[in-house]
Amino acid sequence: MQAAYYEGNRTITTGASVPQTPGPGEVRINVAYCGICGTDLHIYLGHMDKRVKMPQIMGHEMSGVIAEIGADVTGWQVGDRVVVRPLAPCGHCPACEAGHSHICYNLKFLGIDTPGALQGSWTVPAYTLHALPDDLPLDKAALIEPLAVACHDVRLGDVQPGEHVVVIGGGPIGTLVALVAQQAGANVIVSEVNAFRVNLAREIGLDAVNPQEIDLVALVNERTGGAGADVVFEVSGSAAGAAVMTDLLRTRGRIVIVAIFSQAPPVDLHRFFWRELQLRGARVYEPEDFEKAIDLAARDVLPLERIVSAKEPLANLGAVFEQIAADPKLMKVLIKTGK
Amino acid sequence: MQAAYYEGNRTITTGASVPQTPGPGEVRINVAYCGICGTDLHIYLGHMDKRVKMPQIMGHEMSGVIAEIGADVTGWQVGDRVVVRPLAPCGHCPACEAGHSHICYNLKFLGIDTPGALQGSWTVPAYTLHALPDDLPLDKAALIEPLAVACHDVRLGDVQPGEHVVVIGGGPIGTLVALVAQQAGANVIVSEVNAFRVNLAREIGLDAVNPQEIDLVALVNERTGGAGADVVFEVSGSAAGAAVMTDLLRTRGRIVIVAIFSQAPPVDLHRFFWRELQLRGARVYEPEDFEKAIDLAARDVLPLERIVSAKEPLANLGAVFEQIAADPKLMKVLIKTGK
Repeated sequence: MQAAYYEGNRTITTGASVPQTPGPGEVRINVAYCGICGTDLHIYLGHMDKRVKMPQIMGHEMSGVIAEIGADVTGWQVGDRVVVRPLAPCGHCPACEAGHSHICYNLKFLGIDTPGALQGSWTVPAYTLHALPDDLPLDKAALIEPLAVACHDVRLGDVQPGEHVVVIGGGPIGTLVALVAQQAGANVIVSEVNAFRVNLAREIGLDAVNPQEIDLVALVNERTGGAGADVVFEVSGSAAGAAVMTDLLRTRGRIVIVAIFSQAPPVDLHRFFWRELQLRGARVYEPEDFEKAIDLAARDVLPLERIVSAKEPLANLGAVFEQIAADPKLMKVLIKTGK
Repeated sequence: MQAAYYEGNRTITTGASVPQTPGPGEVRINVAYCGICGTDLHIYLGHMDKRVKMPQIMGHEMSGVIAEIGADVTGWQVGDRVVVRPLAPCGHCPACEAGHSHICYNLKFLGIDTPGALQGSWTVPAYTLHALPDDLPLDKAALIEPLAVACHDVRLGDVQPGEHVVVIGGGPIGTLVALVAQQAGANVIVSEVNAFRVNLAREIGLDAVNPQEIDLVALVNERTGGAGADVVFEVSGSAAGAAVMTDLLRTRGRIVIVAIFSQAPPVDLHRFFWRELQLRGARVYEPEDFEKAIDLAARDVLPLERIVSAKEPLANLGAVFEQIAADPKLMKVLIKTGK
């Protein structure tokens, strides 16, 4: 089997990997597909060199089939088709004790803090597994992890049918958030400056606008009879997004912070006071979000295949990273890790 | 009867006022006491000259006795002791229709957008009245309005018994928020840089610290076993408060924005993401907050009299404003408006 290794300095090498025999409570999965996450790109570009251990096998947006089962594992069989919820909480910190183990104070993220899924065979704790329906193709299943992020965001945003929602940022996660919110019955506007992404969003049935070309606040007020939107998802991580988010909302409207902000932007706290706005951070997912994502994918109600821009072999990973870094016309790229 | 008029340019004049006969749905109140609010100080200092109509009678933190009743008013009698919830919503905007009339898009604030209570006799809509228990002194009752602000803040913060609360800013509102949260069973720390206010807070049974002298984040972590606080009230309106508020909280902890921020400060949105923090703006009050404040004052469970630094006659109002603007050792000043 093969694995791809991040060696630092925008360098990926591919080499043989020895399947790791699962220990107690673990399973070994033959990986089918693994999507490239924005975090993987950050690692590749060197932004997380202090956190990862080189040579680092990245990857966590995966699908696969159980190949081997360790001791003390019940409920799983060789041949089961699965995805992995790549979180390993400590179990004893204040977050874990409060029932927030997905944001454990000592969280290990599989594929960042441990070896990841960009290899033929991945050994993980059995408690991270979610079963896939038989008829859900494994390429589509590799989108379950980012789709679970979107399900978590929409759940924490408490989106209700008929509500007006604005998604700031139309990359893969923003597009999935918009699709999940629309599927929940909301009226959704996607705000995105990249023309390729605006067009793609429109092609898959979303209402998308470029806020550099139209007045987004005026549009939302027009659509809502002057009230403002009910929910805004900030998925751009930009100062412009943080500036406009507070102007878009009605009284007691909700902002969900999905993006990773690398700097603390100015935020209009007076507007929070004035309209009693609410803001909620949303990070990764909980088990129910994975189950919701699997259900949505299995029912085939979202155009997930349109989010996938390309499927590439593992040997092309370095070139794929360079392409993603350079080309604004890519959404999700899947790596076929198996033979 | 007398009234005090803001004439612009830090100038207050006192002159005779003619009692205004109440129209349909209105009552006329003989004002007993009226507290000076931070907003009144802003008006006096000229910060709100575009909003007020000079000569402006200010004042809204009042108590009094009904003197005259207009047509179509039921449920009230001359002689009833009352306070006024000084909000006049439009009744037909999106906020009013959503049940958020206290933050109506066209809200008139009595005493800012209309003549206020710094006069012997004040005529207001009867729907703004709350009845006072017979044994609640009228000087203490003049604190009901700011106490209702604190009750609203603590209610929106969803403070639970045993929770750890930090109040950033120990002025009159911050101190009342801390007292109400403590009375609700929370463990409260007040963070305040003014030594007089720190000492006053300690004297009335609050745990107060100066964040320029101790490490507030370390203190909170020590008190909470490394978890962080459950709720932070930002009442300082300072960039320093906005910077530290996100560092104080546990996973899914809540920040309540009470202060009026004149500028948009940098806010650590990454921390919101990382710990799934929540933030909620809280403005003025709803009827139930006034009822809660009246109940707390009537049961005499809070040291409200210690919040009052002075009681002055109406003729001294200009001097009082100059004193408040200059002297950091004042908390609430009450004006005795009656004879």
